[in-house]
Amino acid sequence: MGLLRDAGVVYKPVEQIDLGPCSNESYFKADKAPRMAGFLLKIFAWFLESRIIGALLLYIVKKNNQVHKLVSNATLEEPPMFVPLHPITDLNQQEVKQIDSDASPPERVQQAIKCVPVTSDKSLDLKSSCFRRWTIADYSRAYSTGEITPLRVAEHFIDAVRESCSPPLPMSFFINSDAEDILRQATESTLRYERGNPISALDGVLIAIKDEIDCYPYPTTGGTKWLHKFRPCTGDACCVMRLRSCGVILVGKTNMHELGAGVSGINPHYGPIRNPYDPKKICGGSSSGSAAVVSSGLCPVALGVDSGGSVRMPASLCGVFGFKPTFGCIPHSGVLPLNWTVGTVGILAATLDDAFIVYAAISGDLPSHKPTTLPPKVQFPLLNSTKPISNIRFAKYGEWFNDCSDEIRICCSNALNLLCDHYKWKTVGVTIPDIESMLLAHYVTISSECSTSLSSHMEKLDFAEIGWDVRVALRVCGAFHGKEYIQAQKMRNRQMQIHNNIFAMADVIVAPTTGRTAYSIVDDALKTGEVDCINGAALIRYQIAGNFLGLPAVTVPVGYDKAGLPIGLQFIGKPWSEPTLMHVAYAMQALCISEYRKPKVFYDLLHKS
Amino acid sequence: MGLLRDAGVVYKPVEQIDLGPCSNESYFKADKAPRMAGFLLKIFAWFLESRIIGALLLYIVKKNNQVHKLVSNATLEEPPMFVPLHPITDLNQQEVKQIDSDASPPERVQQAIKCVPVTSDKSLDLKSSCFRRWTIADYSRAYSTGEITPLRVAEHFIDAVRESCSPPLPMSFFINSDAEDILRQATESTLRYERGNPISALDGVLIAIKDEIDCYPYPTTGGTKWLHKFRPCTGDACCVMRLRSCGVILVGKTNMHELGAGVSGINPHYGPIRNPYDPKKICGGSSSGSAAVVSSGLCPVALGVDSGGSVRMPASLCGVFGFKPTFGCIPHSGVLPLNWTVGTVGILAATLDDAFIVYAAISGDLPSHKPTTLPPKVQFPLLNSTKPISNIRFAKYGEWFNDCSDEIRICCSNALNLLCDHYKWKTVGVTIPDIESMLLAHYVTISSECSTSLSSHMEKLDFAEIGWDVRVALRVCGAFHGKEYIQAQKMRNRQMQIHNNIFAMADVIVAPTTGRTAYSIVDDALKTGEVDCINGAALIRYQIAGNFLGLPAVTVPVGYDKAGLPIGLQFIGKPWSEPTLMHVAYAMQALCISEYRKPKVFYDLLHKS
Repeated sequence: MGLLRDAGVVYKPVEQIDLGPCSNESYFKADKAPRMAGFLLKIFAWFLESRIIGALLLYIVKKNNQVHKLVSNATLEEPPMFVPLHPITDLNQQEVKQIDSDASPPERVQQAIKCVPVTSDKSLDLKSSCFRRWTIADYSRAYSTGEITPLRVAEHFIDAVRESCSPPLPMSFFINSDAEDILRQATESTLRYERGNPISALDGVLIAIKDEIDCYPYPTTGGTKWLHKFRPCTGDACCVMRLRSCGVILVGKTNMHELGAGVSGINPHYGPIRNPYDPKKICGGSSSGSAAVVSSGLCPVALGVDSGGSVRMPASLCGVFGFKPTFGCIPHSGVLPLNWTVGTVGILAATLDDAFIVYAAISGDLPSHKPTTLPPKVQFPLLNSTKPISNIRFAKYGEWFNDCSDEIRICCSNALNLLCDHYKWKTVGVTIPDIESMLLAHYVTISSECSTSLSSHMEKLDFAEIGWDVRVALRVCGAFHGKEYIQAQKMRNRQMQIHNNIFAMADVIVAPTTGRTAYSIVDDALKTGEVDCINGAALIRYQIAGNFLGLPAVTVPVGYDKAGLPIGLQFIGKPWSEPTLMHVAYAMQALCISEYRKPKVFYDLLHKS
Repeated sequence: MGLLRDAGVVYKPVEQIDLGPCSNESYFKADKAPRMAGFLLKIFAWFLESRIIGALLLYIVKKNNQVHKLVSNATLEEPPMFVPLHPITDLNQQEVKQIDSDASPPERVQQAIKCVPVTSDKSLDLKSSCFRRWTIADYSRAYSTGEITPLRVAEHFIDAVRESCSPPLPMSFFINSDAEDILRQATESTLRYERGNPISALDGVLIAIKDEIDCYPYPTTGGTKWLHKFRPCTGDACCVMRLRSCGVILVGKTNMHELGAGVSGINPHYGPIRNPYDPKKICGGSSSGSAAVVSSGLCPVALGVDSGGSVRMPASLCGVFGFKPTFGCIPHSGVLPLNWTVGTVGILAATLDDAFIVYAAISGDLPSHKPTTLPPKVQFPLLNSTKPISNIRFAKYGEWFNDCSDEIRICCSNALNLLCDHYKWKTVGVTIPDIESMLLAHYVTISSECSTSLSSHMEKLDFAEIGWDVRVALRVCGAFHGKEYIQAQKMRNRQMQIHNNIFAMADVIVAPTTGRTAYSIVDDALKTGEVDCINGAALIRYQIAGNFLGLPAVTVPVGYDKAGLPIGLQFIGKPWSEPTLMHVAYAMQALCISEYRKPKVFYDLLHKS
């Protein structure tokens, strides 16, 4: 690979190009091959069509025509032109409140809080017997009343992270977490509360960021030992910057499956991320650390990135909420460009209120870039409405829904029945054809995009720095032909049409989040990672429509298997139907929350002695 | 290739799928490979990374995971999800009249005629000494006054086509032209005129269709000997149906470069298409026959398809107008899906009036498919306005503009100077970087899409039925990797941004249409076709932005070289700026039309004795 590789040009970013007549951009014309016709052309065609000589000739033709230099191996920052942005249609969603997208993130947080159900405090009294994690509202209240300071919570947090790293089973939640940086932020926040002017309800709240998202001053490793050497982090990602502007304490970069190229969260470089409900089990991936820190009580919210279920799977396996909005809803700038058409920032949270508040803070288009296909306003359901939501129809594909462990099937069916009975909602039987094909087409897409993204680094890379499972993944990722990528995009169009037809029959597609609960971390995988297609397929089975078609989806914890491992139920909505999806998820949460169990590894930062 | 190929599934069209709970679509799950970790995983990674064994292993991995069956070799009708549709912005174009897109094609024709300049009849008197071809208005007037009947014109046409096929130099204009079908249509049209109720100004007007567009009952060969066997034509393409509904006489399918895979128009199966200005020269391609029939006076208008300059190049080389509208402006249904993101139907015509009238008839979205990114109305410039158009700014990239033969450079510069002087318009010097890279990225794109489109047929194909130049082209087309396709799409985004910046400085980009005039048909190419990269590059040099970025463009005949071969000047506009483009083209036409020369091969159908 290295030997034959031609150096590629580096294209300037558009804003640095002088387009005037005296520009130093030179007019370049490649040399052309001479004319061929008749017998010479026949000979050339024959050779070209032969397998071995043909491949060599093609290489020479591409090289001589500067394809390698000017296209294949070129470096440029721009994403591909086409992304699955859905045009806005009037979804006629009930009881929706629009939040002003021109408002600042702190203002949006305050607007969102007004939409949060007023009932939650009563039904979830802190002193009641059922378990629940501390929410943004709890922190905000405790800081405002002076019950505790952000600085004290930060100190507890630093202690707890240190404790989580200790033998015999270090939890490997973080790749980087800098105590000094945390204390500095906490001190500032504490001062703001002392002066009586916190920035927003998020002021002093601890939030962790997946190490795929830029968060200054941390490097963005993507779970690798090398990516940050080639791509230094020079500032906050847009979503992180918005959180920071709300007064959030950014507590560090969570561990993840290397390059997001797997779903176990077993990272050979930074340790396997362990499940707070059973440290011998995986968290699921790739946003494993973000799920684990929320599950274990270290943070009420963490950010992840969901390109193939990477937020929803670990959320489900760790017993927390995972919310992946419609493609394009949260700006992707400052997120590692591991793909361009399937990934989106997602939110992992202990309660829907918190997911909702953070969503308000970070969603909405960049001011500099307003394509007409994006909604002009961020829409939220008016959740403190006393009106019941009527006539939600769930699409359920029985064979797919049931293609999971017995415990998950029973738990998810019971939860769905409870929901439908309680609210008089309906389930519509449907068939979603070619789900396995969609999974493969998604794989071809994300693989091709990932290998394009990494291709300029691969040259300089010492392969010994890459985990073995990721070496296999990268090799397979890079194996797809242009025809296969385009074929996958045709299948994407077809499935989008199929899903549109499903959504003509129902409002929300319902399925379990995963086909199995967290499985064991086996010792032989600790140094090499693992390739486990059977367990991997069970985890990823219900994820694809969310990413490949850009649909919004949310996973809600609805129960536990016999081993006490969490089970999630997933709701998948039409493009831009976040308000409906949130309505449904809130309704499900209200029916399940009293059953929530405390994880084996849990840190109570507010009430630490 | 054939030996190793796995059969692909055939996916049903979406509308045929039963999505109900009792559907016969089966829930399919592929078998999964077992788990690997530790030493076994290391061995597997080593083998995978080795060159020869790795390639074989990858093949097995893809095959075992059903990638070949479910993705690579699958057959499905849907186009890929993403196309370069530009959002509508208010272009603030002067003196624009909107034509009701809900109106029927005949109504739209009549509305368009009202926008046509009233001056043209005076300045272009039929009896004046300067040459001009018969227009839609001439036919319409002659039919209405009874000077001649559509049937009589059709008979002249059939004679003329027969004459054009005779030795020593058969012109090879048509692949199929059925006298009986033409006479039937002409008889019906004649009856309508006799009854005094022609459908529209297009009633009885002869229009030819490139053999890449479905026109029942003709097969759609795409210039091949085989494509129509695999893809039977079952009805009219949308644009043809619209023309037929206006009363047009569809006179047959014009010859083209095989599969549009070249620019010479030398078709080894149906003969080399010869230039009416010099039958020993090429017409340019790939819509060669469509340009030639307009140039030679057989039809006032013909349809072509422009995926890489395929309408503009032959129009320029044959001395007629070639108009390629913004991507998505004319429905593509019923056009061979040789690519999905660069091709669009274009119009070849003897005058701008006629291009304009036919554009009114065939443009506008399908009623069943109204993405929000398309303009709600078709817009036309109000051309009979007496107001002069003010302040047009032309972007001219000197080095690129001048990268052509001396005669073209001088002729095009003079025409542009004349235009600017006459209307007090301005030329702005600009630099458009990386034009050669854009050309390659376009080539990677169209090649990958074309080979995806044809891939399901290639299996069944006898290679002896393909021309040698196209065998070479197909082999090179199929050689691009998924990474290269995606890289090309990144470059597309970058160039779109660059062009947006250019369009902030100017309204229209101006350049010659081709870098050289028509070149000789050499005997050694007659049976094999030819690969002539130098001449090919000279023709295609100015075409790419129109296709790769989906921009509208029009070529206007502005003069002749010393050998009497036509020269075209090209105007390239912003997305959806057709009205401005038409304004400019009309202005150029008005200054040049008195110099137009009669081709060596010309048929006067109206005045034939």
